[in-house]
Amino acid sequence: MSIIYFEDFSVGDKTVFGEKKVTREEILKFAHKYDPQSFHVDENAANESIYGGLIASGWHTGGMLMRMMVDNMVNQRAGLGSPGFDDLRWILPVRPDDVLRFESTVIEARKSSSRPDMGIIRAQIYLFNQNDEKVLSVKTIGMMKTRPA
Amino acid sequence: MSIIYFEDFSVGDKTVFGEKKVTREEILKFAHKYDPQSFHVDENAANESIYGGLIASGWHTGGMLMRMMVDNMVNQRAGLGSPGFDDLRWILPVRPDDVLRFESTVIEARKSSSRPDMGIIRAQIYLFNQNDEKVLSVKTIGMMKTRPA
Repeated sequence: MSIIYFEDFSVGDKTVFGEKKVTREEILKFAHKYDPQSFHVDENAANESIYGGLIASGWHTGGMLMRMMVDNMVNQRAGLGSPGFDDLRWILPVRPDDVLRFESTVIEARKSSSRPDMGIIRAQIYLFNQNDEKVLSVKTIGMMKTRPA
Repeated sequence: MSIIYFEDFSVGDKTVFGEKKVTREEILKFAHKYDPQSFHVDENAANESIYGGLIASGWHTGGMLMRMMVDNMVNQRAGLGSPGFDDLRWILPVRPDDVLRFESTVIEARKSSSRPDMGIIRAQIYLFNQNDEKVLSVKTIGMMKTRPA
């Protein structure tokens, strides 16, 4: 497998993949461990909440997004991790049996000013559901190795 | 237990709690499921990475932060969930045996213009480790019920 370096990215590059099926079991398991709010762990309470049914923890949706990135992008790249991200929005609830699709567009690609062996890629990422509705939006920041001379 | 409503918050209000001990087992378990990058799941690869050892997935650190919020804050409040958050930064790696402490300061409290029964609270949250170093920074957005008339 050839490794993808910083230089292989340009602003506007788009990556699309999926699908990730969301299960009730996985929603409950994650929420019991990390986000036991009633509308994430209690079907009856969720039905009576403003969400009208069980929904995934937003952090769980973020975890699923991360796993999709690792499976499809990260492990083929000379990645160095991430300092964080900006403007995360949970636009619509993610529910059992939803099917998620991933779309990423590079919005900035620049060399690090302090580390010449590193570049920084910023991307606008969306998750869509099976109805082509945006459920999550986030601007990511990734650090990558530059191609060895 | 008395419920805490939107009106009970003012800009500058500070909440501090902890401690959350981070275990190697939990780091590996989360990462195998949601973020199997080598420096999160492979001790040897992690030792040779720029991180110099195994570190928690940033999404895992976010999940731990969420759980600390639910245990200490959310379930005592008339919360309605969250539309997202801004400016998340993983400032320092979180490692096995780290002990995390939570600090939140309200930076904005305003009524919703579209829903009079709802208010919006923005907060600056930090996680610190046992050496009083900031490991995570994020600006959260919470929706809360206003107190019934």
